[in-house]
Amino acid sequence: MPRKIEVCLTPALIDLYAIEESIVVVIDILRATSSIVYGIDNGAEAIIPVAQVEDCLNYADRGYLLAAERNGEVVEGYNFGNSPFSYTADKVAGKTVVLTTTNGTKALHLARKASQVVIGSFLNLQALCNWLKTQDKDVLLLCAGWKDQFNLEDTIFAGAVVHELRPLFTDFDDAGVAAEDLYSMAKDNLRAYVGKSAHSHRMMALNIEEDIKFCLQLNICEAIPVLEGDNLVALKGI
Amino acid sequence: MPRKIEVCLTPALIDLYAIEESIVVVIDILRATSSIVYGIDNGAEAIIPVAQVEDCLNYADRGYLLAAERNGEVVEGYNFGNSPFSYTADKVAGKTVVLTTTNGTKALHLARKASQVVIGSFLNLQALCNWLKTQDKDVLLLCAGWKDQFNLEDTIFAGAVVHELRPLFTDFDDAGVAAEDLYSMAKDNLRAYVGKSAHSHRMMALNIEEDIKFCLQLNICEAIPVLEGDNLVALKGI
Repeated sequence: MPRKIEVCLTPALIDLYAIEESIVVVIDILRATSSIVYGIDNGAEAIIPVAQVEDCLNYADRGYLLAAERNGEVVEGYNFGNSPFSYTADKVAGKTVVLTTTNGTKALHLARKASQVVIGSFLNLQALCNWLKTQDKDVLLLCAGWKDQFNLEDTIFAGAVVHELRPLFTDFDDAGVAAEDLYSMAKDNLRAYVGKSAHSHRMMALNIEEDIKFCLQLNICEAIPVLEGDNLVALKGI
Repeated sequence: MPRKIEVCLTPALIDLYAIEESIVVVIDILRATSSIVYGIDNGAEAIIPVAQVEDCLNYADRGYLLAAERNGEVVEGYNFGNSPFSYTADKVAGKTVVLTTTNGTKALHLARKASQVVIGSFLNLQALCNWLKTQDKDVLLLCAGWKDQFNLEDTIFAGAVVHELRPLFTDFDDAGVAAEDLYSMAKDNLRAYVGKSAHSHRMMALNIEEDIKFCLQLNICEAIPVLEGDNLVALKGI
């Protein structure tokens, strides 16, 4: 069967794609989708993405952990933000986390009408690709970007997925070709390449170099978070 | 003075940029902006970009040449479309051409509120960059794309401009970094690289290989078309 894989470089372009019959992979490498993958892999029961910090408050009395971040910093009074080091097993196993982020949650909400929405990061790259290979649907890789703008780190991850899936797909868009080529330039030193990004400069100003390094590790997780209703949970049967 | 150069990868993202004080370079390599540069360089008095084929008809009784194209083909009854070979001196010198195209004209119209709107193509790359270097404004490189989607050929041209201007600018966005890297991969064989593009496959189906090769020539024109009112005319004093 002919299969199409496309890359949507920012959420602002999502309306150009017919996603109802597709699998959408949401990508926000620094740091939302990396932390989501790590948290689900570490046994979090669910992670609930919300669009606004204020939406978190609706969950305050249910015993959930509340994670809120704006412009890369933890919002005062919340349990934690987007750092993957907050999503270790001792903190999240068996727990539900309510998460709001600047860009990742927005992309997730825009992707909801897709046939299936899953979460990608370098941490679960191989597990994600192995699963995508076994499906019979088209794939849209949705980069969360930065305030609706293109960013490098999400794009090179999309390129890594295109590179891995290319032999099984027949249709590619120009964004996928570009993403794959950028990944080929970046892959031998992801950290140095991401260092060219304006977003990473913002991140460095926040003193989260360890977070960045963590998010660029390959294949330390097997979990694939999938959107079920309002919750991200572990995809079963992989 | 700190100067910023950014790349808007598709017209659908133009609202993310504050262009009122900037110079916007409109880019539609295959083939609108290549033909516009070639036509102005060959002495066309003006080229008037319009958004709809029907808008051309408003100019029908003024003795202008009418150029209309949709989805890469000349519209029946018009003088010509977007092929640069229609914009030779013997056809256009001293004439005004009314031009409508699928993507380029749309980008031009969206850029109108900029401080200045000029036209870029590989044909006038060096002349354009030389002029941009002497200005004191920020620069936005606006890729026309294909039906609001990212395309390779416009992006690598944007990358060529970023590459040339980098020493004089202080602020770059991630799209500019990516475009420059893609250009570095493409520059030794632009035709082969553009061959990876979905759009170029559509072009090849239209049997316009000679057009594509023509549009990928470097620096055969000195003219920089600039938008004045509704008209694209030669920038004076360069």
